[in-house]
Amino acid sequence: MVRRLSVVGLGPGDPRHRTSAAETAVREADVVVGYQPYLDQCADLITTDRVIVGTMGGEEDRARQAVELAARGHRVALVSSGDPGVFGMAGLAVTGIAALPVDRRPELEIIPGVTAALAAGALVGAPFARDFACLTLSDVRTPWPVVERRLTAIAAADIALALYNPRSKTRTWQFDHALAVLRDHRGDVPVALVTDAARPGQRISLHTLSTVDPETVGMRTVVLVGASTTRRVGDWLVSPRDVPE
Amino acid sequence: MVRRLSVVGLGPGDPRHRTSAAETAVREADVVVGYQPYLDQCADLITTDRVIVGTMGGEEDRARQAVELAARGHRVALVSSGDPGVFGMAGLAVTGIAALPVDRRPELEIIPGVTAALAAGALVGAPFARDFACLTLSDVRTPWPVVERRLTAIAAADIALALYNPRSKTRTWQFDHALAVLRDHRGDVPVALVTDAARPGQRISLHTLSTVDPETVGMRTVVLVGASTTRRVGDWLVSPRDVPE
Repeated sequence: MVRRLSVVGLGPGDPRHRTSAAETAVREADVVVGYQPYLDQCADLITTDRVIVGTMGGEEDRARQAVELAARGHRVALVSSGDPGVFGMAGLAVTGIAALPVDRRPELEIIPGVTAALAAGALVGAPFARDFACLTLSDVRTPWPVVERRLTAIAAADIALALYNPRSKTRTWQFDHALAVLRDHRGDVPVALVTDAARPGQRISLHTLSTVDPETVGMRTVVLVGASTTRRVGDWLVSPRDVPE
Repeated sequence: MVRRLSVVGLGPGDPRHRTSAAETAVREADVVVGYQPYLDQCADLITTDRVIVGTMGGEEDRARQAVELAARGHRVALVSSGDPGVFGMAGLAVTGIAALPVDRRPELEIIPGVTAALAAGALVGAPFARDFACLTLSDVRTPWPVVERRLTAIAAADIALALYNPRSKTRTWQFDHALAVLRDHRGDVPVALVTDAARPGQRISLHTLSTVDPETVGMRTVVLVGASTTRRVGDWLVSPRDVPE
């Protein structure tokens, strides 16, 4: 009996940015579990009829189902976009498996992928060529004071930054606030907005902290914020390798 | 005439973690440029006889050659491991192209890949499931006070952290110092050492900040440092999605 759970990162969207390991895991799965947009992203790879569609926000349920099916003897692929270890499903899969009795635990493989920050960074040049951080602005699972404390420390550290989940229809003031914190600490550095990176409808625009229009930022936007050394070079952003004292 | 420079990220090592876009770019190149270990990593994809071998530390030369050959009408693949935007060649390629007269500039494509931190993270669980930073400890191109200032700010921000280039045969005290800074700010959190991630000879070990043996850390090690919320779950590390106040 094969008991295997593969937690698969499909990359940003375009099949060109999927890895062979991700493609093989989906092809070999006899059950594929995922939120519908992620299933669409790998529809060309699915060979099984057994596909379980999760819901947005239903990550715990999805992970539990995937773990349980793997424990019962299936090869399960739990798919998501980007990298499953970055704001993804890998943690829930690990804790789900660890909660099972040892003799029921499936084999677990976490398959890394190209996360949104790196896909977006490649589209605008090399904003992350030196140190960088990835931070979510969502305060759904973390109180805002914690988010703000982290953001302030990173702003002061003067390293490039990718903001995930920057703004939604109902969660709007947090992004304005984040821009203000960043401006206070590092001046008017370059910013890139990348929406739907490597997906149909991809949009890229370059700004600075003071010229970003928050209305153009949504849940599928990654906001790339330069360090004080980051320069605009034509239509590209570059963070130099050499950092002065 | 095709003038194209592809800056290609080959991922951590194992061909399983290469993307289709990376594979296609190397296959279609009529010149491939890279440091020897990176050329070895894609030897199975190279279809041209024209391969230019760079040297360690010769990144500027390599980028200049690649840009010049592309400007002269070649399809050039400039290859490296991981993601070319993270401590990689993308920035040098952008600035090299921008320095050319407009009518000589080749088309540029930066092809993202799975960077070492994410490959290593997937091997040990989900240490980066919440916010994280990637930082190099090398003080070759950045003065140590700047490195230490950044490290201190990130340590205080209590986000998970991947340390690149943590230690070499001759550059040893910096890593000891970094461990001390991290211990001062976040106590004895979990640490994973991953050497040669997804390559022959891969080694993984779990520790805490106080039990890491610096002698086991080298240039091909990525050091993953948990946040204060990161937990060891069996043989895995997990940073929970929920962060308390």
